[in-house]
Amino acid sequence: MANSARIDALRNRLLTAQTRLTREKTFALAIIVIGEPTAGRSEVVNKFLEWLDPKHISVHALDPVLMQDDDDPPMERYWRTLPARGEIAIYFQGWYEDYLAPALHTPKVLGRKAERLVAQIKQLERMLTHDGVRVLKLDLRVARQTQQARIKTLRASKATRWRVTREDRWLAKHFGRVRKVTDSLMKATDAAYARWHVIDGTDPDKRLLDAGSLVQRELETAHKRTATAVAKAPKSGATKASKRAFVTRPPEALDGEQYAHELETLQGRLALLSRKKSMRKRAVVLAFEGMDAAGKGGTIRRLTGALDARQYTVVPISAPTPEELAHPYLWRFWRRLPDRGEFAIFDRTWYGRVLVERVRGFAAAADWQRAYAEINEFELQLVESRIIVRKFWLAVGKDEQLKRFEEREEDALKRFKVDQEDWANRRLYDAYQAAARDMIERTNTDYAPWTVVPADDKRYARLQVLRAVCDALTDELKK
Amino acid sequence: MANSARIDALRNRLLTAQTRLTREKTFALAIIVIGEPTAGRSEVVNKFLEWLDPKHISVHALDPVLMQDDDDPPMERYWRTLPARGEIAIYFQGWYEDYLAPALHTPKVLGRKAERLVAQIKQLERMLTHDGVRVLKLDLRVARQTQQARIKTLRASKATRWRVTREDRWLAKHFGRVRKVTDSLMKATDAAYARWHVIDGTDPDKRLLDAGSLVQRELETAHKRTATAVAKAPKSGATKASKRAFVTRPPEALDGEQYAHELETLQGRLALLSRKKSMRKRAVVLAFEGMDAAGKGGTIRRLTGALDARQYTVVPISAPTPEELAHPYLWRFWRRLPDRGEFAIFDRTWYGRVLVERVRGFAAAADWQRAYAEINEFELQLVESRIIVRKFWLAVGKDEQLKRFEEREEDALKRFKVDQEDWANRRLYDAYQAAARDMIERTNTDYAPWTVVPADDKRYARLQVLRAVCDALTDELKK
Repeated sequence: MANSARIDALRNRLLTAQTRLTREKTFALAIIVIGEPTAGRSEVVNKFLEWLDPKHISVHALDPVLMQDDDDPPMERYWRTLPARGEIAIYFQGWYEDYLAPALHTPKVLGRKAERLVAQIKQLERMLTHDGVRVLKLDLRVARQTQQARIKTLRASKATRWRVTREDRWLAKHFGRVRKVTDSLMKATDAAYARWHVIDGTDPDKRLLDAGSLVQRELETAHKRTATAVAKAPKSGATKASKRAFVTRPPEALDGEQYAHELETLQGRLALLSRKKSMRKRAVVLAFEGMDAAGKGGTIRRLTGALDARQYTVVPISAPTPEELAHPYLWRFWRRLPDRGEFAIFDRTWYGRVLVERVRGFAAAADWQRAYAEINEFELQLVESRIIVRKFWLAVGKDEQLKRFEEREEDALKRFKVDQEDWANRRLYDAYQAAARDMIERTNTDYAPWTVVPADDKRYARLQVLRAVCDALTDELKK
Repeated sequence: MANSARIDALRNRLLTAQTRLTREKTFALAIIVIGEPTAGRSEVVNKFLEWLDPKHISVHALDPVLMQDDDDPPMERYWRTLPARGEIAIYFQGWYEDYLAPALHTPKVLGRKAERLVAQIKQLERMLTHDGVRVLKLDLRVARQTQQARIKTLRASKATRWRVTREDRWLAKHFGRVRKVTDSLMKATDAAYARWHVIDGTDPDKRLLDAGSLVQRELETAHKRTATAVAKAPKSGATKASKRAFVTRPPEALDGEQYAHELETLQGRLALLSRKKSMRKRAVVLAFEGMDAAGKGGTIRRLTGALDARQYTVVPISAPTPEELAHPYLWRFWRRLPDRGEFAIFDRTWYGRVLVERVRGFAAAADWQRAYAEINEFELQLVESRIIVRKFWLAVGKDEQLKRFEEREEDALKRFKVDQEDWANRRLYDAYQAAARDMIERTNTDYAPWTVVPADDKRYARLQVLRAVCDALTDELKK
């Protein structure tokens, strides 16, 4: 078959696969494209854009984070650009750029970070694959002599000289080093769920056929796999209730005056800490979890009462929107991280994955079980970017919760705070307790610790949280 | 009636109004709160957050743009945070901060910009009100003596001293100047669609009742108004087709070789321009409009073929998502503006308001008619932030369009590009032409000009666009 006929056939299959993807929205595809100068990286991507429906493809090319003056966690910008189910995203270099650029240009800057970066990449790709984003990785190459000849030809004519950038020339000059660094990175990040594919870029038709066939096969395989996966998805396991209960009743009772004084003092302490110069280079993430009516909202208002409104955001988390559901579950949290100098206070969090989604069976057992490690990694990346992370479980007793529900229902002004969902969750009180216990056990890390707060007395709980936040800031702002 | 009973009654009505808003999603409410130290600004807002469902209220407080090192158009961050229909957003200072902060601290920096800022604020509020975002503006005040006494008391106790910030003390010290600047700004920005309300902050209960009643009345009035407006909304007027037609056939025919050579040369010119150092402080917005099959996609690919993938984003615009529909129509474009040094290429644009929305009757006549001025203002704000804006109408003839539709339908690989919508739009070809003519006449500004490109010959059109972009960059990058 002639090349042009084969290309047309490929194009047809690709288009069919994309149309099905757009319609069924069962998964997303992220394509990483790296390559050597003149091997046809841009040409291949441009053809994809011409062949397929560009409304459902986005192309991303970003400068390497390590070489920029940027404090955000390196993976944040990739998370932000992740394709929703039904969409294709093409990344030039993608999350490999943060390794490749310094490895080539400033190996010293990379240094000890290399191993950690590789671990982050592998963890990201594993999580994406689990969460419905297929990852396909292509590397276009040409032999050194071909590359040199092509660069020479392009530079010889005034009309085509612009096609060879300074970067291309640098890469061509360091051909051996580039290939060595790339080879070792590819070896370290080749995995069953995200294979590297090397494509010979010598012949324009052949490289297009090779790259296109890989994309087409990835799409078709994923379509088949999703069909099977949906059929086989295991039911979320019933949770065996743990016998041990959280302490919900505080040891001491506070009278109103005592409380008011302590509150004012602690708020003052927090206010002064938040104004410290050293805060400008840090950021704070506070995560609040607890049963309905545990007092999260009231506690959060006592915190924000001490902060400048310019310095904090409260992020209320409820059931995910359709857009959020179309992305990996951590996506919506990556988008709400605080800037430098700021606080982000989450009223419910990413722990929903191992709480409500586990208990109510919204996530398959395998999915919430791997979430502990994914969340630990997520928080580690925040802490590595000098974000202070603290997590609070407000432990309210079953009787006290019932009392609060009933009070709310009797009060016209608070009735809206209790709905059928809350009662449904209450019936699963014991299962939630067990889930919370597992969660704390498996995600209580040195770098992002949990504080369990007895919350049957609202005043006590508020002061405890304020105190813990103040202590954490006092401690962290010295570092 | 005792204060506490009145507060409970108010709380009840507020909650009812918010619940209705959340359910019906007929409008959004933006509340601007400014105020003098100790007048109870934060206290009032905190009460609202306690009373209402905080999942549907967001609070925003931002540093003034003019005093930051930020190149983005000042209004961009407000657009990004606008509440969707059904939501309430509270802005501490909001878009007034960009005026107030420099007016107080660095009047010289403000200087001639003052008038322009006021005009931008008024235009923004007018547009928001038209587009379903009600704007309520509150200013909390206390008499000078009260303020001084309160600050003295707070500072006298170690426990409460933190409540008086350095900024508060500065504002108290310059009481007269603060009030004068605020008064004149309020006077300049008081309008029927967005009134200023001064609230006496002396008594904590009274200020809460006053502020709360204003919010409640705004919500209730808006509920009524929306009900009437929906009933009365005028039908989009039928468009009288203009007799004059665009030139669609180019004067010259190009052979393949000539075309290839010119394309390569122009792409080279564009590539070199895009790499200029002066580009780093600029950004480029290219807007493409034209009938279906006019060749927008192919033209855009010839532009991006000359650019570094890190430097551009192509933004395909199709029918708005539910989230986009819940916001003013310019919202989704404000979110896709280019960073410094970058190109944003829009495949269809904000002009949809005066093209498809007008022709198909998706927007009321009054709405698309005021859009010309709104769009001119939008583009002016971009240009004022040193963004280069160029707009292209690809004029394809009715016969040529039909030919392309038929070719696409016969080609399995291109069939997906023509759907029922395209045929429906084609039946309105003449109406679209008239709409395009009006659009160009009313939005062809010096700072953001249109280029009408005869597009019956694809090659000719591509070269024309490339040339126009190169000329614009050559010209602008000197500035």
